[in-house]
Amino acid sequence: MPENRLTKQVEFIVELDKLKGILRRTHKINESAYENDAEHSWHLATMALILQEHSDEAIDLTRVLKMVLIHDVVEIDAGDTFAYDDDAAHRKKEIREEQAAQRIFGLLPKRQGCHLYELWREFEARETPEARFAAAMDRFQPLLHNYLTHGAAWKDHEITAEQVLERNRPIAEGSKHLWDYVLQIVRDSVHRGYLRDS
Amino acid sequence: MPENRLTKQVEFIVELDKLKGILRRTHKINESAYENDAEHSWHLATMALILQEHSDEAIDLTRVLKMVLIHDVVEIDAGDTFAYDDDAAHRKKEIREEQAAQRIFGLLPKRQGCHLYELWREFEARETPEARFAAAMDRFQPLLHNYLTHGAAWKDHEITAEQVLERNRPIAEGSKHLWDYVLQIVRDSVHRGYLRDS
Repeated sequence: MPENRLTKQVEFIVELDKLKGILRRTHKINESAYENDAEHSWHLATMALILQEHSDEAIDLTRVLKMVLIHDVVEIDAGDTFAYDDDAAHRKKEIREEQAAQRIFGLLPKRQGCHLYELWREFEARETPEARFAAAMDRFQPLLHNYLTHGAAWKDHEITAEQVLERNRPIAEGSKHLWDYVLQIVRDSVHRGYLRDS
Repeated sequence: MPENRLTKQVEFIVELDKLKGILRRTHKINESAYENDAEHSWHLATMALILQEHSDEAIDLTRVLKMVLIHDVVEIDAGDTFAYDDDAAHRKKEIREEQAAQRIFGLLPKRQGCHLYELWREFEARETPEARFAAAMDRFQPLLHNYLTHGAAWKDHEITAEQVLERNRPIAEGSKHLWDYVLQIVRDSVHRGYLRDS
């Protein structure tokens, strides 16, 4: 195929297909199967579209959509790290993900690759309103899945309510309104035995 | 759960999970499995992000992203119709999908549901630059998959090059540049025996 620029873009697009094979620890709601990163990323993007009004700060929806669409691309090389893994596992993850980002966004024409790399760094840093809201979506979605599968992944790993509240604190930084909703879900999950009391 | 508005939005978000179980006839590139609608929709959205510069007309990326994110939601009720099914199957599909759109977008708060319903209609009609570009992505993605899986789905259904060109004509309406690329892929697919000559 000729045409360097389009060829590079297609190469990146083809690489993305691999994300459909990266399994997360979250169970799908309507099927007894783990969700993969592509499904998860799509779900976050539609959620951002639907829930944008609940952001505490004004946000540029397009930036949020871009971030959630590409936030897990690094897992093609780095794999999924479980949310409740220990700190050492999370530090190793950071190094692997940085290398993955360099390689994968590096497939694109230079300026375009840099743009996506910067968006990914912004997502990871959670220092802008868009990144905070994107992070809130990234936490809220698996929490909903856990609640609606009667705590399936929580039970697999004997997670406590305290761990869930700690892990999901970024939701409060993106949306006080959603955080109130989350507190109700967590209380109800303990009440129903989906989640161990702390 | 209290709070009518957020509750409705969450109900819609939970409903969306079902799209992860709607299988298409397209094979994934890196796995011997059919792709589902959620994976497909995510792939289209990232493609729109990467390939927007190839649109023949100026487009509002956010509108394109919204369209591709929700374009297959109706298949939760209506199922997937194979691209190469006959006209009668496609007419039946239209009726089923209209009913599905009414029910599923109807889960949302009224104005928000109407907004997404209108975007879905716009996508289906292919009369705006955004809808044309979104449709180009929706055709280009499975074509790439077919090419890179050595014509897997084409062979399953004994599809000819003529059928592929006819089916994918909307790509030419969204991007002449991508269409040129598609013509090369189709020629090469015939040459390699992935696709029957017309």
